[in-house]
Amino acid sequence: MATLGFIEYQDANPDVRAVYDDIMATRKTDRINNFWKAIAHDPATLRRTWESVKQIMGAGALDSLTKEMIYVAVSASNQCGYCIASHTAAARKAGMTDSMFAELMAVVGMANETNRLASGYQVEIDEQFKT
Amino acid sequence: MATLGFIEYQDANPDVRAVYDDIMATRKTDRINNFWKAIAHDPATLRRTWESVKQIMGAGALDSLTKEMIYVAVSASNQCGYCIASHTAAARKAGMTDSMFAELMAVVGMANETNRLASGYQVEIDEQFKT
Amino acid sequence: MATLGFIEYQDANPDVRAVYDDIMATRKTDRINNFWKAIAHDPATLRRTWESVKQIMGAGALDSLTKEMIYVAVSASNQCGYCIASHTAAARKAGMTDSMFAELMAVVGMANETNRLASGYQVEIDEQFKT
Amino acid sequence: MATLGFIEYQDANPDVRAVYDDIMATRKTDRINNFWKAIAHDPATLRRTWESVKQIMGAGALDSLTKEMIYVAVSASNQCGYCIASHTAAARKAGMTDSMFAELMAVVGMANETNRLASGYQVEIDEQFKT
Amino acid sequence: MATLGFIEYQDANPDVRAVYDDIMATRKTDRINNFWKAIAHDPATLRRTWESVKQIMGAGALDSLTKEMIYVAVSASNQCGYCIASHTAAARKAGMTDSMFAELMAVVGMANETNRLASGYQVEIDEQFKT
Amino acid sequence: MATLGFIEYQDANPDVRAVYDDIMATRKTDRINNFWKAIAHDPATLRRTWESVKQIMGAGALDSLTKEMIYVAVSASNQCGYCIASHTAAARKAGMTDSMFAELMAVVGMANETNRLASGYQVEIDEQFKT
Repeated sequence: MATLGFIEYQDANPDVRAVYDDIMATRKTDRINNFWKAIAHDPATLRRTWESVKQIMGAGALDSLTKEMIYVAVSASNQCGYCIASHTAAARKAGMTDSMFAELMAVVGMANETNRLASGYQVEIDEQFKT
Repeated sequence: MATLGFIEYQDANPDVRAVYDDIMATRKTDRINNFWKAIAHDPATLRRTWESVKQIMGAGALDSLTKEMIYVAVSASNQCGYCIASHTAAARKAGMTDSMFAELMAVVGMANETNRLASGYQVEIDEQFKT
Repeated sequence: MATLGFIEYQDANPDVRAVYDDIMATRKTDRINNFWKAIAHDPATLRRTWESVKQIMGAGALDSLTKEMIYVAVSASNQCGYCIASHTAAARKAGMTDSMFAELMAVVGMANETNRLASGYQVEIDEQFKT
Repeated sequence: MATLGFIEYQDANPDVRAVYDDIMATRKTDRINNFWKAIAHDPATLRRTWESVKQIMGAGALDSLTKEMIYVAVSASNQCGYCIASHTAAARKAGMTDSMFAELMAVVGMANETNRLASGYQVEIDEQFKT
Repeated sequence: MATLGFIEYQDANPDVRAVYDDIMATRKTDRINNFWKAIAHDPATLRRTWESVKQIMGAGALDSLTKEMIYVAVSASNQCGYCIASHTAAARKAGMTDSMFAELMAVVGMANETNRLASGYQVEIDEQFKT
Repeated sequence: MATLGFIEYQDANPDVRAVYDDIMATRKTDRINNFWKAIAHDPATLRRTWESVKQIMGAGALDSLTKEMIYVAVSASNQCGYCIASHTAAARKAGMTDSMFAELMAVVGMANETNRLASGYQVEIDEQFKT
């Protein structure tokens, strides 16, 4: 059902295979998610997206688990079914427990609520937040 | 400009003051954000919202800093100007450095991008994510 | 700051004035909102939008106050500052009290929260809702 | 497919059963929606969410039918499939006819349209709405 | 599963059939999309929506292909599964190639990313954009 | 008011200046938008974002004007004030006339409307769109 279908590893040209190999090596896995196989129809999109994700999601000032949970938070806020499924799996692989998941979702729910209360009540930004 | 205006501490009835006092005690601050002063016009909304926030944002399986950063991530995804301002301040107070902020925003940006690539390419969910 | 500026009544051509007159007659007012003055640069957009709004917002199975409150609910969910301001005013003119406003916003907040809990927890639709 | 699965009534601990019983008594039904069974994995989330919904959705300045229709409006705006399904059913149970539903959706569609026209044309808020 | 079901051509009253005939004549097709069959339960909604779409999507300063691609861009940003599917098909029929599709989605992804970076970093609008 | 302030050209380190120079050369301008100056506090974000934008926005199967208009369409749908302002200016620079702008916004408005009608009416995807 993917718009352009999937590019499977065995059918991929060298450019695409190079990215697939890097994904599997970086993530220590032997499979490629449907997401990558779908966007691989445009090798430039595949490479740029993967290089960005690799740079952004590596451990830094924030660890990988925190980054994966932020990814779940955004995906849930945006109602992206594919992303919620794939990133919940990724977060679990990075160490997210059921308790962490429940707390994460509680914050996501609350933030989506107060975001609209703030807008709906037309609350002006406090001066001290404007620095 | 707030739709119902603000309820200042000195003008608040006992129910509202009780919530204001709890906010200040819990957050170790001597001021009340505009957000609370705006929704205080409906004491039930004020109490319910504060009790929920207090329960959700306390340290648990996730620490408070992580929770505040998730709040910023959702607020940025939803384009809520008030919430971005207030929760960025709260996250800083909880220990978020400039490096953490930059990495947080990088994940938020990337997630908002791949959420739409996944939808736009109509990528079906991998079987192994459906467990 | 509007992208194409405003078309004021005195500067409007006959097509635009006809729409302005109909707006004022229908809404029993002697002024034109900035919104109409902005989109009036494209008379087709002005006419189509006004005719649709007039048809949709008139009392029917739902009364006008209920319709205006739904408009506020959607505008708050979408974080549209202009629309929240203008439709809150319209709802008040149609009879919305402060209590109604507070209850409306409480529902909006709660719905925005549970929408994300349902997605984030990947809840499948109950069979009995699928009829 | 729910992330943490469902907690069925017969498998629920006393805290969760207490909430399930209250839901059924309040809504005069003998079943529990998938939504509650999914979030019940975190009893604090279940209790807090149900208590909030119960408080917010009861008849007040706005009647229950109006509140359920607002819930549908927000859920449609946010594209939440589960919520559209469950709350459309709830609204019907509260008395929503097909005519009401059609008018509700017409307002939702129109509001989502004009929200973007207002933003896209960068319309500044009328002074008289700023009080 | 559509809320009110579908109105098939053979079961349609004259008002609805007139719109169905116009859709098929305008789009040079012999079938009616599920979308029209669903909203046809409210003939006023069907007529108003079709008349608007016909007026808006016809070639003008922008050609039809460009308009269909904009429609895909918005639908992907909003995560509307039905709309992504139907408008991708329409765009292809209007001449969208796989390369155009890939470039379209790349822009959609990037725009959704930088929209949140701009908000999250609370970037004030440059003076020269305010004219 | 930007969260981390702006990095002005004269205060920029060599890495940041290199990106600023490339932006000005590519866009044939002598100024740097506030957006770039804000994210420049994280040189990795600045470089990655600019390199992606440069790759994506260059003329290809779609010309630059079409790409800028898609960017405006997404930004309006997401209610991003900064992005609407800056990309409307960019689209004008690329050749967008007032007529094109009006038609663009008409499509954006209509798409945001029908996206919600499709969801709200729970319209199932036509079989022929699933190939």
